[in-house]
Amino acid sequence: MIHFSDRLAESIRTRGSAVCVGIDPTVTGMPDELRERYARDVPECGEETAVAACFSEFGCGIIEAVADVAAAVKPQAAFFEQYGAPGWQALAEVVRCAQSHDLPVIVDVKRGDIASTGAAYAAALFGEVPGLVGMAPGMGADAVTVSPYLGDDSLIPFTDRCRAGKGVFVLTRTSNPGAALLQEKVVDGRPLFLHVADLVARLGAEHVGVHGYSDVGAVAGATAPTSLRAVRAALPNAFLLIPGYGAQGAGAEALEGLAAGDASGFLVNASRSIIYAHRETGADYRSAAARAAAQMRDEIGTVA
Amino acid sequence: MIHFSDRLAESIRTRGSAVCVGIDPTVTGMPDELRERYARDVPECGEETAVAACFSEFGCGIIEAVADVAAAVKPQAAFFEQYGAPGWQALAEVVRCAQSHDLPVIVDVKRGDIASTGAAYAAALFGEVPGLVGMAPGMGADAVTVSPYLGDDSLIPFTDRCRAGKGVFVLTRTSNPGAALLQEKVVDGRPLFLHVADLVARLGAEHVGVHGYSDVGAVAGATAPTSLRAVRAALPNAFLLIPGYGAQGAGAEALEGLAAGDASGFLVNASRSIIYAHRETGADYRSAAARAAAQMRDEIGTVA
Repeated sequence: MIHFSDRLAESIRTRGSAVCVGIDPTVTGMPDELRERYARDVPECGEETAVAACFSEFGCGIIEAVADVAAAVKPQAAFFEQYGAPGWQALAEVVRCAQSHDLPVIVDVKRGDIASTGAAYAAALFGEVPGLVGMAPGMGADAVTVSPYLGDDSLIPFTDRCRAGKGVFVLTRTSNPGAALLQEKVVDGRPLFLHVADLVARLGAEHVGVHGYSDVGAVAGATAPTSLRAVRAALPNAFLLIPGYGAQGAGAEALEGLAAGDASGFLVNASRSIIYAHRETGADYRSAAARAAAQMRDEIGTVA
Repeated sequence: MIHFSDRLAESIRTRGSAVCVGIDPTVTGMPDELRERYARDVPECGEETAVAACFSEFGCGIIEAVADVAAAVKPQAAFFEQYGAPGWQALAEVVRCAQSHDLPVIVDVKRGDIASTGAAYAAALFGEVPGLVGMAPGMGADAVTVSPYLGDDSLIPFTDRCRAGKGVFVLTRTSNPGAALLQEKVVDGRPLFLHVADLVARLGAEHVGVHGYSDVGAVAGATAPTSLRAVRAALPNAFLLIPGYGAQGAGAEALEGLAAGDASGFLVNASRSIIYAHRETGADYRSAAARAAAQMRDEIGTVA
């Protein structure tokens, strides 16, 4: 078994990039050419099927364009779930497309539930789902995001899958304006998110790859740089998945001094500023995304 | 517009029941007759389609059986998501089946994400999804569960839908063994979950129906009765969605003194002890579920 953290480290080193491209498709963001073409299918097949097919083509187009300059991709389940069963199918197609380009796929779902339900979510996302006769395939994600509010037993069904080469990123200090409300509350002299970081360290301790990184990482936003640094200090050998770059407002200065280990030790995610770069430049959406991702790779610095 | 809280209050009063039946289907829990019948379809249509069809028939069978003795039903998305796009379709069918029996449907998803993503989840679950030409339907849930770790801006895309007759239950003090790890941490002299209860009160204040209940409720487990009472004290006019009854171990004594308002003010959820009652009794799964739900209704007491 190859550790997820080793696959990610190799991907970062091979591509000289710590960029993670978020696949967050919306109908208003679609390139005109795609939107017009798939709109013609709506009368026959309905909105859900038409939008899902449009998102699948768009997501795979983006993935192909950024496959050399991104270390990983992160499709956001919510945008696909809007379109029902066809949307779920499109998400699975995007996952497979990224894997065909040897890109680790973090499916951003932020699930978190009691243990028996957590095991069902882990099966849904990673695979090995019990069927009536044999097994069902599940989504086949390489890694997922999870939410810690329910505590350790809610996360263990996911981190148990690290033994099968899967990765987990636990929400620790998120990038949104409301994040501070609970996450920065002080418990025993330290903000709550550092208690979550303790949990991440504990759950990850038994899942460390040959590059020295844990398969259990933390989500920590670039929009709160002081908290981000505190997460790094608490988790010296975890991969940090850092949202908030680009459209959410943070720049490269938030990343100074964060590198750890031989492969950066973090992924910086940007979604809208890459996948919708065509709206700024007027270029083909694929070449615009490739340029935006390469520019971001250069901004945040090559690694190791 | 009829408030969700008023629909729920009417359902509780009409049926004289505060029972919520959780629809958490697993292949191992399926009645033999269903499992054998759908297993025959696997070679032709595959596991995902066969299991999804089985869960849809089972879920609708349970709903029809309990429609007179349950005030609401709560399908758990994880168990359906395991079976991909067909699983998602089956979940939508279960939602529609419950609504055809005039049962409010709480889709248990525990979502929680940044505001733009939260809006996509709210659209996916409640409806009003932007399409390429018109609109897509979404799942059509009456209410959903959400997770508070990301703070107020992550919940507002859901609570905004209360204006359209939808309901929201915010995880406050959950029923699982690990819940205490973060939720009971003391912040300014009070456990974290009471700070979440403050947030529930604040978000619900502008969404109160004619029965006096808010459309924004709280999830608080019967397995931690002292904390459950503290949530009730903090939220005198919120509906509490109380898991942990039955298979998770709590009994009716955990509910003493919790009633509030003219329609109980709470829903007590049980999943496995109702939907798999046939495994204890050997009876038809529908009649076994109806008996188990009626027995639970009588145990927890009829209401106002």
